[in-house]
Amino acid sequence: MINPFFKNCGPFSLADLLVSESTNSKISRDVVSDTFLINDIKNLTDAKSQDITFFNSLKYKDLATNTKAYACITKKEFSHLLPNKCKKIIFDNVFYLTANITAKFYPNSITDNNNYDLKNIDDKFKDIHYGRNTLVGNDVSIGQNTKIGHNTIIGNNVKIGKNCFIGSNVIIRNTIIEDNVHVLDGAIVGKKGFGFIPIESKNTRYPHVGYVLIKKNSEVGCGCTIDRGSLSITIIGENTYLDNQVHIAHNVKIGNNCIVAGQVGIAGSTTLGNNVMIGGQAGISGHLKIGNNVQIGGGSGVIKDISDNSKVMGYPAKNFKKFIKENL
Amino acid sequence: MINPFFKNCGPFSLADLLVSESTNSKISRDVVSDTFLINDIKNLTDAKSQDITFFNSLKYKDLATNTKAYACITKKEFSHLLPNKCKKIIFDNVFYLTANITAKFYPNSITDNNNYDLKNIDDKFKDIHYGRNTLVGNDVSIGQNTKIGHNTIIGNNVKIGKNCFIGSNVIIRNTIIEDNVHVLDGAIVGKKGFGFIPIESKNTRYPHVGYVLIKKNSEVGCGCTIDRGSLSITIIGENTYLDNQVHIAHNVKIGNNCIVAGQVGIAGSTTLGNNVMIGGQAGISGHLKIGNNVQIGGGSGVIKDISDNSKVMGYPAKNFKKFIKENL
Amino acid sequence: MINPFFKNCGPFSLADLLVSESTNSKISRDVVSDTFLINDIKNLTDAKSQDITFFNSLKYKDLATNTKAYACITKKEFSHLLPNKCKKIIFDNVFYLTANITAKFYPNSITDNNNYDLKNIDDKFKDIHYGRNTLVGNDVSIGQNTKIGHNTIIGNNVKIGKNCFIGSNVIIRNTIIEDNVHVLDGAIVGKKGFGFIPIESKNTRYPHVGYVLIKKNSEVGCGCTIDRGSLSITIIGENTYLDNQVHIAHNVKIGNNCIVAGQVGIAGSTTLGNNVMIGGQAGISGHLKIGNNVQIGGGSGVIKDISDNSKVMGYPAKNFKKFIKENL
Repeated sequence: MINPFFKNCGPFSLADLLVSESTNSKISRDVVSDTFLINDIKNLTDAKSQDITFFNSLKYKDLATNTKAYACITKKEFSHLLPNKCKKIIFDNVFYLTANITAKFYPNSITDNNNYDLKNIDDKFKDIHYGRNTLVGNDVSIGQNTKIGHNTIIGNNVKIGKNCFIGSNVIIRNTIIEDNVHVLDGAIVGKKGFGFIPIESKNTRYPHVGYVLIKKNSEVGCGCTIDRGSLSITIIGENTYLDNQVHIAHNVKIGNNCIVAGQVGIAGSTTLGNNVMIGGQAGISGHLKIGNNVQIGGGSGVIKDISDNSKVMGYPAKNFKKFIKENL
Repeated sequence: MINPFFKNCGPFSLADLLVSESTNSKISRDVVSDTFLINDIKNLTDAKSQDITFFNSLKYKDLATNTKAYACITKKEFSHLLPNKCKKIIFDNVFYLTANITAKFYPNSITDNNNYDLKNIDDKFKDIHYGRNTLVGNDVSIGQNTKIGHNTIIGNNVKIGKNCFIGSNVIIRNTIIEDNVHVLDGAIVGKKGFGFIPIESKNTRYPHVGYVLIKKNSEVGCGCTIDRGSLSITIIGENTYLDNQVHIAHNVKIGNNCIVAGQVGIAGSTTLGNNVMIGGQAGISGHLKIGNNVQIGGGSGVIKDISDNSKVMGYPAKNFKKFIKENL
Repeated sequence: MINPFFKNCGPFSLADLLVSESTNSKISRDVVSDTFLINDIKNLTDAKSQDITFFNSLKYKDLATNTKAYACITKKEFSHLLPNKCKKIIFDNVFYLTANITAKFYPNSITDNNNYDLKNIDDKFKDIHYGRNTLVGNDVSIGQNTKIGHNTIIGNNVKIGKNCFIGSNVIIRNTIIEDNVHVLDGAIVGKKGFGFIPIESKNTRYPHVGYVLIKKNSEVGCGCTIDRGSLSITIIGENTYLDNQVHIAHNVKIGNNCIVAGQVGIAGSTTLGNNVMIGGQAGISGHLKIGNNVQIGGGSGVIKDISDNSKVMGYPAKNFKKFIKENL
């Protein structure tokens, strides 16, 4: 993953990354004292041989078996699933340690930045149209013939393609937008996800190092919220249209040619295939896999994976014909 | 329908409107070469003897039988339902051709306009109060004693009545607001509806030529989105109150004295009678008819018409007493 | 309840408060002519011996029995439940008379104020960071090291603690925010609740004299709406996190260490205990009591009280295991 938004403060030795856990008896002594230099923290798939990763759910067992990471934070009971050569960092609260190590690499990713160095948009952007009070950050690029409304805020390093339409009162940060994309009034794109380690009296916020990628020819409706990924990217596929007041959580990946009606919510890390149609107010739980050509009826609550070419409805969602038959 | 927001570029001859379909073998030759001048495109009910219309669903069979339109775009299997003297334009994808012809009459209705000619509101509006950074377009009228908040954007040709309260961060375009209406902070009123012809890799957006009418004494809550109609008007009736985060899709018509609680969504072209009460988070599918004095319980999913004086709840919504009995 | 936001215009004699009802035969003559001076209008619990209160639902029977109020507006059939020494003001539409009397004490609480005297934030606030076009009202206090984004509006008398993060396009009025609180982009906090007396052709708005209290270490997500209380406070407890697009209605009280996922809605006057977890898109009806350590599954519709340590899911919500079993 290219990371245009957050500066990686690494590399750090594994020992440095684990220094606050140096007396933790569960982590083996040779891991705690390992001076190998770690470049980055990534998910199981993206991690390379000089990266650290984490593994916390059996859903990702196959990815864990094949990870190339140098080291992996995991629970004792999952550690045997990792490759032999991968150093196991045994820790009960995997997310807590992952959050702490991510924060070392990317200390600015925990809280969103208000970008106080934003300036009024001006003529350095050629061949674009812009409204009143529109603010842009540093190193922003905007393609020709793109139109931007009033009171809109575009944070540092954001990239917007050609022929885009960005409405008014929009906030965009940590986001890459391809050509011919429409982002309508009041949408908020790229904020940190709703991720934290619940701790009595003061939760620990989870760093969100990822970004949002909106592919070409797509549309994001009014008042939508699209959160950026924690370690991976939140993706809206090509030619995919979101209606108003849709909420897309961190790490969600939506395929191409999808239609998402008003007030739909998709929880974190769920992936959707291509040509998926979702009716209004439907909700999809986190960490699910929705196949290609799936139709989800309005108001449905999806709590399981859905295979290709299925049509479902209900709460919880079931086969559409069955739902209709049971509710005639 | 008066159309204060979009200039009609017509009239066009029927032949001109169908020029891109001149080789389409399904459309009869005498229609393709008809030089009769068409004034406008309208729905089945509003179309007059010099207008073109469209007919795509048996739901509207009765309206089709009685249309006064000169010509009608429809599917082969529906064409016999139209009056004899109405010219039939047979086309498989009715919406696609309707969109293209609407775009000829109203080329500016496909994408919302950011209204770059908006200016800071100033003293040409007498006897009103307004906040900081409030922008108004050309030919806007605002009645006396109306109050408008900060950062609010009022697009070209919008009409706002007397004694209204418009909050801050509000966006209003293509909308007529009667007297004593409250539109609260962050509401977005009058944007184009979520309508398009799904086409692989690049959808065709449907023009939205209609507007939003908010009748007197009504209230629109914070963060609500109300989309304008495609060919007809989206209406919020008199003395009807919408709570926060409600979504009203294009062409919806809500009667008088209705109460719509928070996060309710009403899909396109549905009509509600008078004195309708809708509990929080309920959803109503598109193209339905909800009668007078109807009560819909919170969280319900309405997928069928509801007759006058009914009380329903559930997903799908059913008789309220039955719902309670089954779920005791 | 301290009331930093609305000036109490009292005291008024009971006779003055009831002057418009002086010919109402249901209210006893000695009450209508009582010259005792009433200080304030409060709920059954908070009312002291020189206050007036109201009692309209048997849910609050126990509170009514113990009220210390000098007088109470209630229905005939409930009046025997009040203490002997409490003057009974018998009235069919309890809310209507309560609204009218509240409006006498607090005439500015019926419609939100656009705060036309807001000014651009400036250097009188030391040790804080703020963005462009940010407006603040009179008598606002902001603690050190607090960060505020762009286009944000902070109404008169609002208090914000230390080390807070307030995003961009946020609107805050009638709210007290403790230390270390994050309020993310586009949130609208402290507007009047969705309360009114339905009256044909012109509803009567209910005054909202309360405020919003957001306790320390909490987070309010993007696009959330939190309404202020009518006569009591809307409370977000310590270390409680709300995800995006959550709606919290007036008088709701949420405990500490709660987690509320995206697009949840909580209707008026419901209270939640500590350590409550609510999945995405769940809805909770009004006037309910949700205990401590309760877990509510995503998409649930809660229409009954829930006791401590329960786990529920479904619409209507039921025991979680039962829901799963029935829906396998």
